[in-house]
Amino acid sequence: MPRVMICGDLVWAHQECEEIFQGLAEVVRMDSPDRADFLSGLKQGGKYEGVVGVYRHNVSADSIGVFDREIVDALAAAGVKWIAHNGAGYDQIDVLYCKEKGVWVSNTPGAVDDATATTGFYLMISALRCFSRAERTLRSGGWKSTHRPGEAHDLTGRTLAILGLGGIGLRLAELAHAFPMRIVYHNRRPNPNAPAWCEYFGQGRLDEMLAQADVLSVHVPLKDETVGYVGETMIRKLKRGAVLVNTARGKVVDEAAMIRALEDGHLGAVGLDVFPDEPQVNPRLLEFPNATLLPHMGTETCDSQKKMEIRALSNLRDFLTKGKGFDIIPEFK
Amino acid sequence: MPRVMICGDLVWAHQECEEIFQGLAEVVRMDSPDRADFLSGLKQGGKYEGVVGVYRHNVSADSIGVFDREIVDALAAAGVKWIAHNGAGYDQIDVLYCKEKGVWVSNTPGAVDDATATTGFYLMISALRCFSRAERTLRSGGWKSTHRPGEAHDLTGRTLAILGLGGIGLRLAELAHAFPMRIVYHNRRPNPNAPAWCEYFGQGRLDEMLAQADVLSVHVPLKDETVGYVGETMIRKLKRGAVLVNTARGKVVDEAAMIRALEDGHLGAVGLDVFPDEPQVNPRLLEFPNATLLPHMGTETCDSQKKMEIRALSNLRDFLTKGKGFDIIPEFK
Repeated sequence: MPRVMICGDLVWAHQECEEIFQGLAEVVRMDSPDRADFLSGLKQGGKYEGVVGVYRHNVSADSIGVFDREIVDALAAAGVKWIAHNGAGYDQIDVLYCKEKGVWVSNTPGAVDDATATTGFYLMISALRCFSRAERTLRSGGWKSTHRPGEAHDLTGRTLAILGLGGIGLRLAELAHAFPMRIVYHNRRPNPNAPAWCEYFGQGRLDEMLAQADVLSVHVPLKDETVGYVGETMIRKLKRGAVLVNTARGKVVDEAAMIRALEDGHLGAVGLDVFPDEPQVNPRLLEFPNATLLPHMGTETCDSQKKMEIRALSNLRDFLTKGKGFDIIPEFK
Repeated sequence: MPRVMICGDLVWAHQECEEIFQGLAEVVRMDSPDRADFLSGLKQGGKYEGVVGVYRHNVSADSIGVFDREIVDALAAAGVKWIAHNGAGYDQIDVLYCKEKGVWVSNTPGAVDDATATTGFYLMISALRCFSRAERTLRSGGWKSTHRPGEAHDLTGRTLAILGLGGIGLRLAELAHAFPMRIVYHNRRPNPNAPAWCEYFGQGRLDEMLAQADVLSVHVPLKDETVGYVGETMIRKLKRGAVLVNTARGKVVDEAAMIRALEDGHLGAVGLDVFPDEPQVNPRLLEFPNATLLPHMGTETCDSQKKMEIRALSNLRDFLTKGKGFDIIPEFK
């Protein structure tokens, strides 16, 4: 029987994992305390020998590090053909090298849309309404927030610009549309699933979109070419007092440029769920009263996490039974 | 020319106030440091003599107190026929005594729906997702929240019970429907404006509704008969782990019963924008990690406050020009 490896956390779907692979594969749990032990386990006669598919969760990086070339080499040499990543973002996997070595990668796109969009939504409300600041004032013995009149705004009638309208951006758009807010978005190509009320701005009209936005919400994946994508130039195209929300990855935003814009008031507020060096948070960010800061809570719900686990495990099962999981990442298409 | 009085804050609509009453009435500003000065100003020869209509904001209570019998008597004796209250809740006015004395009262119902519903929505997200707690953890040097796995939930698919489906409750219902959540509500009578997906539970089925709710959001006005309305019995009908959200008035909820339910875990979380003795907050509430606490921010946006000011002033104008403002409170109908 082929073997599959659970590499990192499996919290909610233990029972489902057993049922899914019953009679199909032997499940082996990655328990290496460090990279050396992991690499040696993959060698002939090692404890992971015979593994053909890997369920992967980011928490595995705490012990064995990210799936870089060294690990991908070892996995490929051991006969692994599929990495079923649990999560929408797969920046911890060198996917182009995987492709080169013939190891397919899937993620769990739809499963996180709802929870992550909710997080962006919450950050946007908090930023526009000054709520997290108001709670800090109350908890430090004050009452009404220290905000100057005119700083708190209704969402209704404002313009939300979505940078990267995929599944998460689209869910956010639907929630904000209920107010209604005006929704504008930029993708390289229009999203065919976008409703008519989502106004598309292509590359040539990106500046125009930024100039109209009251809120810019970031939903682009982290890749080499998106590091610092939301930088000085883009931030300065926003109108003065605009709000920046990031629930994607910290490195997609140029943190130094963002902090400068907070300092001189060009940015009215920020809502951040992600940071460049998690779990480190730049202490400077804590000093801005108009910053709402969450510790990467985007997908932190038992409902979504169970959905993600089952979706990742199902991709692995489909690989075993059909030769191909459903959620192959775009790089392989 | 008749005189109208601005009693309490007018922040956003100074210009509009001038325009509205141009050639129609003389605008006099209430500037009394205390009640005695106010009462004497209303007497013959006093600085407020000849006032027939009053724009009222709650902040006036800080100097002259609430509009109780003594103040209503003085207003009626001075010839005041209309009190245009700025706000949805008018519990600071003895409206039944106003009616007895022939002084009409209007409020500003629709203008606050959006902002207050947004506040309830934010509190619900924070409670279900453990967000405000997570931010406190981050700001105190930690990272992921200290919550136990399984405490954070998606909104999608959960049941929101709305106690008092008026304008604010209906806006909250629309926002939550976007997830979608299931929406159930209790009023004395069905709201004719409620869409079909808002399921009505009358008095005989209130317990049934409470037993199905994941979140109970309170939107009933404060009156003698609603003090402590959400009490021990009602809270205990909720399922274990349910969330209580209050953006109405603090005294509508029996705070002691709520705290007992937080202590023994019957309530999973609370989101409170209002408190029985504002601006005092019961320090016991600060000790619960699963409490999100805002300092009565419900209508604190410049957009909504301007809307409210203009709506209250318009009621006063309509009284002068047509004998009757639009937003007469239900007690007078």
